[in-house]
Amino acid sequence: MGGLCVSISALNHDALFLTVDWADAPPSRHALIWLRDHDPMGFHPETGERVFDLLSVPEEPHLVDSSVVEDGQAVTLTWEDGHVTRFDSDFLRKQFLEKGRRAAAPIVPESWDGRFGERLPRHDHDAIMQDDRALLAWLEDITCLGLTVVENTPPVVGSLETLCRRIAHLRETNFGTVFEVFSKPNPTNQAYTADALPLHTDQSNQETPPGFQFLHTLRNEAEGGVSIFADGIRMAEDLRDRNPDAYRLLRDVKIPSRYFDDDWDIRFSRPVLAEDARGEPVEVNWNRHLTDVFDMDPEESIAYYRAYRAFLALTYDPHYRFELKSRPGDVFAFNNRRTLHGRTKFDPNTGARHLRGCYVDWTDMMGRIRVLQNRHGKA
Amino acid sequence: MGGLCVSISALNHDALFLTVDWADAPPSRHALIWLRDHDPMGFHPETGERVFDLLSVPEEPHLVDSSVVEDGQAVTLTWEDGHVTRFDSDFLRKQFLEKGRRAAAPIVPESWDGRFGERLPRHDHDAIMQDDRALLAWLEDITCLGLTVVENTPPVVGSLETLCRRIAHLRETNFGTVFEVFSKPNPTNQAYTADALPLHTDQSNQETPPGFQFLHTLRNEAEGGVSIFADGIRMAEDLRDRNPDAYRLLRDVKIPSRYFDDDWDIRFSRPVLAEDARGEPVEVNWNRHLTDVFDMDPEESIAYYRAYRAFLALTYDPHYRFELKSRPGDVFAFNNRRTLHGRTKFDPNTGARHLRGCYVDWTDMMGRIRVLQNRHGKA
Repeated sequence: MGGLCVSISALNHDALFLTVDWADAPPSRHALIWLRDHDPMGFHPETGERVFDLLSVPEEPHLVDSSVVEDGQAVTLTWEDGHVTRFDSDFLRKQFLEKGRRAAAPIVPESWDGRFGERLPRHDHDAIMQDDRALLAWLEDITCLGLTVVENTPPVVGSLETLCRRIAHLRETNFGTVFEVFSKPNPTNQAYTADALPLHTDQSNQETPPGFQFLHTLRNEAEGGVSIFADGIRMAEDLRDRNPDAYRLLRDVKIPSRYFDDDWDIRFSRPVLAEDARGEPVEVNWNRHLTDVFDMDPEESIAYYRAYRAFLALTYDPHYRFELKSRPGDVFAFNNRRTLHGRTKFDPNTGARHLRGCYVDWTDMMGRIRVLQNRHGKA
Repeated sequence: MGGLCVSISALNHDALFLTVDWADAPPSRHALIWLRDHDPMGFHPETGERVFDLLSVPEEPHLVDSSVVEDGQAVTLTWEDGHVTRFDSDFLRKQFLEKGRRAAAPIVPESWDGRFGERLPRHDHDAIMQDDRALLAWLEDITCLGLTVVENTPPVVGSLETLCRRIAHLRETNFGTVFEVFSKPNPTNQAYTADALPLHTDQSNQETPPGFQFLHTLRNEAEGGVSIFADGIRMAEDLRDRNPDAYRLLRDVKIPSRYFDDDWDIRFSRPVLAEDARGEPVEVNWNRHLTDVFDMDPEESIAYYRAYRAFLALTYDPHYRFELKSRPGDVFAFNNRRTLHGRTKFDPNTGARHLRGCYVDWTDMMGRIRVLQNRHGKA
């Protein structure tokens, strides 16, 4: 926006608002109290944080003068207490243009069906480790498409963490900072058996299910153990088209999830689907294994189960899914609150299967993308 | 509930529902599809997770028989496909009694004003480390009252982490797993200056602000640097009574927060106040420092600023706050999404001031309390 060089032609103010006339656009209005609170002098020079004492000015601060300066590139506002505020025209224009989009995810998702397997984006471990632009291109693919593969990640313990720390610190959970996926004795979780895993997202029982998941294959020699993926956003979009009542129930009714073992009992209730500010479905938390006792009224549960089964049927539908047997060195990197993952069962007597997984949280991922885009532009 | 020994006197079923007559309570209804999905045989014997394939039964599964057995302590349901489901009566009674409360926080908060400083709960480090019941009593105080002090925590690096890992793993953020609070050159955050810190909660710019915060004093010899606390729930309750329009705006309108430095740019939008399922205010995320450019319409911003200033005025009001100079070995343990904290400025030339802080997340804390309560009963 710094390069816009938008120009202000005139200013008018009344008791509550400043009206800005632009050389190239319709006029914009700005509340005087908003302007006083956003004075650039109210931010700490080193930390950039707001330090202005909002209660040091009246509820309705009044202007005694408003002037266009610097050939329309800036304005000065003189308040009745004598304080003078200066704004770049760009700043006011940005507020006018970007309303409601500042905190939004910087990338809008593109949904897909099972044919996506043929064009699954593949990125290279060494390029990501060495080049910020390659890192950014990878992260933009993950956030836009919800699933990528990073190839050639050394199939040894430790390389997964090093790769993911290019993005941010890892999200630790009750399963640790890194979890090991292989068949274990006395499993506390379905992933730690040799059973098939139906399509799911991880940890719907957490207040904030992990945003992004990274699954690194060290060994995959057992028969079976083929990975399965499907896009929850596409399923949600199709459900909305075909069965809007079911869609609304899955969006609006909270259901409880729970993980428990000897040491943990972690519970949270949330709807299966969530929309963003555009009203589009962007989040799917789907984990049958972890669903706790449904606590709706019996009459509600009849309707809810119809909706829930309709979505479950989509997770069984081959139209949405594809299968892929990972090789040592592959890292599946995916949006854990969108992309459902699963596996076919494997026979641990036919060979070793060992995956390692970890998580990075949503706001940390988005923050890394913003910083890289500011440095390098969009990839 | 296992000890309730509630008794069922009769059962009736139709095409959609089972009706249960209780010896000591009004009848309860249960949807047949709900009953089929909650059959205890549909859960994995080792992991306890749901493995029943819901689509293996019809949308409206029908009963051919329902029988009271074991003197009313259990029921058996025979489905048209021949499958027989057995439920303990206690399980059905629990579903009937606990609707909507399963995933709720196990403790209801009690709000307080500035006089709370006189009865601030104090717990002992060694007792918490050695005794699960002392640990539970501490956690119940934190979650109910939102603030406690743990005394005699060795004022050395490392003892904070050891104490907090009695609860769960720590929540890592862009400030690290543990953050060090003292005056630093080139600060990126107001906490790292010697300035006063107005009352605030941490990291409103995160999708999930840390649930609980732990601040350990190693040294506090500088002049000033007195800690300040206030209960955001009490302020929200009073605002609701006196200015319900302002309360609603703070509950309903999202405002953006942002933390940024050379390496991070983390943003999220949320309302200041949040209610629980009871419709009571339980969460306050308040951080003026981190508020980003407000993005509401100019007309909305006039009303919003009135509401926002009304809450800000409460954070200045001595009625709600108390001050306390911490001693080496004190750990302030508080609900970071409820209890506002701050400090008076200090003079780093008059002595050292060094605090260390860390976070534990909400669902992990609640999970630890559930596990301890199941083992030991409420403290």
